[in-house]
Amino acid sequence: MMARPILRGTVYLVGAGPGDPELITVRGLNLLRQADVVVHDRLVHPELLESASPRAHLIDVGKAPGRHTCSQDEINRILIQYARQGRAVVRLKGGDPFVFGRGGEECLALARAGVPYEVVPGISSAIAVPAYAGIPLTHRGVAGQFTVVTGHGGAVDWNSLPAEGTLVILMGVERLGEIAAALVERGRAAGTPVAVIFTGTTHAQHVVDGTLADIADRARGIAPPATIVVGPVAGLRAGIDWFDPSQLRPRTATLPGDAFSPLHQPVKVAA
Amino acid sequence: MMARPILRGTVYLVGAGPGDPELITVRGLNLLRQADVVVHDRLVHPELLESASPRAHLIDVGKAPGRHTCSQDEINRILIQYARQGRAVVRLKGGDPFVFGRGGEECLALARAGVPYEVVPGISSAIAVPAYAGIPLTHRGVAGQFTVVTGHGGAVDWNSLPAEGTLVILMGVERLGEIAAALVERGRAAGTPVAVIFTGTTHAQHVVDGTLADIADRARGIAPPATIVVGPVAGLRAGIDWFDPSQLRPRTATLPGDAFSPLHQPVKVAA
Repeated sequence: MMARPILRGTVYLVGAGPGDPELITVRGLNLLRQADVVVHDRLVHPELLESASPRAHLIDVGKAPGRHTCSQDEINRILIQYARQGRAVVRLKGGDPFVFGRGGEECLALARAGVPYEVVPGISSAIAVPAYAGIPLTHRGVAGQFTVVTGHGGAVDWNSLPAEGTLVILMGVERLGEIAAALVERGRAAGTPVAVIFTGTTHAQHVVDGTLADIADRARGIAPPATIVVGPVAGLRAGIDWFDPSQLRPRTATLPGDAFSPLHQPVKVAA
Repeated sequence: MMARPILRGTVYLVGAGPGDPELITVRGLNLLRQADVVVHDRLVHPELLESASPRAHLIDVGKAPGRHTCSQDEINRILIQYARQGRAVVRLKGGDPFVFGRGGEECLALARAGVPYEVVPGISSAIAVPAYAGIPLTHRGVAGQFTVVTGHGGAVDWNSLPAEGTLVILMGVERLGEIAAALVERGRAAGTPVAVIFTGTTHAQHVVDGTLADIADRARGIAPPATIVVGPVAGLRAGIDWFDPSQLRPRTATLPGDAFSPLHQPVKVAA
């Protein structure tokens, strides 16, 4: 596949994806490999940063949770400064730049400064983390819509959420009890299936299943990052739980025969 | 980056992304290159199919809109048959397999048949098509949630949609008038910004801007595929309209100086 070249003096807002480093896009990885400067978030996978050129300048703009070393204004200034020096700048952000990523703010700052930029979408954890836990956000006859919201920061108006369909809550695990109670009050059945997925798409992926009535108790004490899925699709997990975190590959338990089946060997490919 | 190997006797449900072929994931492309059999939708980009091995068997299971040559049951049978023969099978689907992609149904059929499978998320057009049109689905102080729904097929209960936040409607352009009227009746202001994006992320991308009151008239006569974005974020497009479809690269119009600026040249990289 022909890769479009990187341009000097330009900022690329690249989504790094949800955790699994192989879920970055082909375009995102090509740009990362060619960048002069990489301005990255704290949660970006180390393997992705190792893909950058050895001569690239790497800048971590989010060293610790709740203790950002860089304000958004400082990040904007860094991006503008290096672009104006004629560097090819990759701004590497977890997930997708435009899903709770403040990517729009960075774009507006770059536009005001007259710096050209490109948005390279990333796989959003809102969709991929449930997928790795065996949950399709939509499913014929089960859910025909999904809503994504963050539980982080200011008060969410839970009354503004739909009473039907799948609900994905990012960064809400610390307020899980409050959120579950509000959804029941809003009209969702207390028995509605809920899955809470911790460190999704990685070796450390761990899923807690429950209902709106008991999920806060079941998931108590587990630390973020976590993705919460509310709705009947969470119940499909039992049949679609394909991902083996320890191997980062499909489970073999459903194979006819057993895990040593000759059908389930790596294919040898020419280099 | 180390790529995990493809496994024989396994089906990989791979999301091809929204149109731009470079938006497939690194994992998706690696699997596509190694597959023995590729079972693909009609709308998948030809450049992606050219990435498959020359010895791979390519099967088109969706030849024309509204006239599927294969039913879902037939697709399931094809996937199971080739996996049982010990082939490494990629099921290449537009967008993301779990966002209106019937991926969950294919997973359940494979699980019932005892065939191992993996889900490889793709960039959903619900997020990336708005991004290429300069629309972030969330933006601080503008929208803190988004809902994705399809306008296709059976009657959507528009009353089940939230009255706030961003709304993305896939496959709804033929019913745009009806949808806009229902949203106004449901409580959204008639002046709410709406963008309709045709053939997004490609050379042929074309955007029609309007409001709930006039978008049906403005977009009349334009053919699918289209993505509809409703909400104040659609108004951010004016400041974030970065994508030049004719060049598949950032617009140069906002550059200080002009398009011939030495800052805006491709970077030379070692091969």
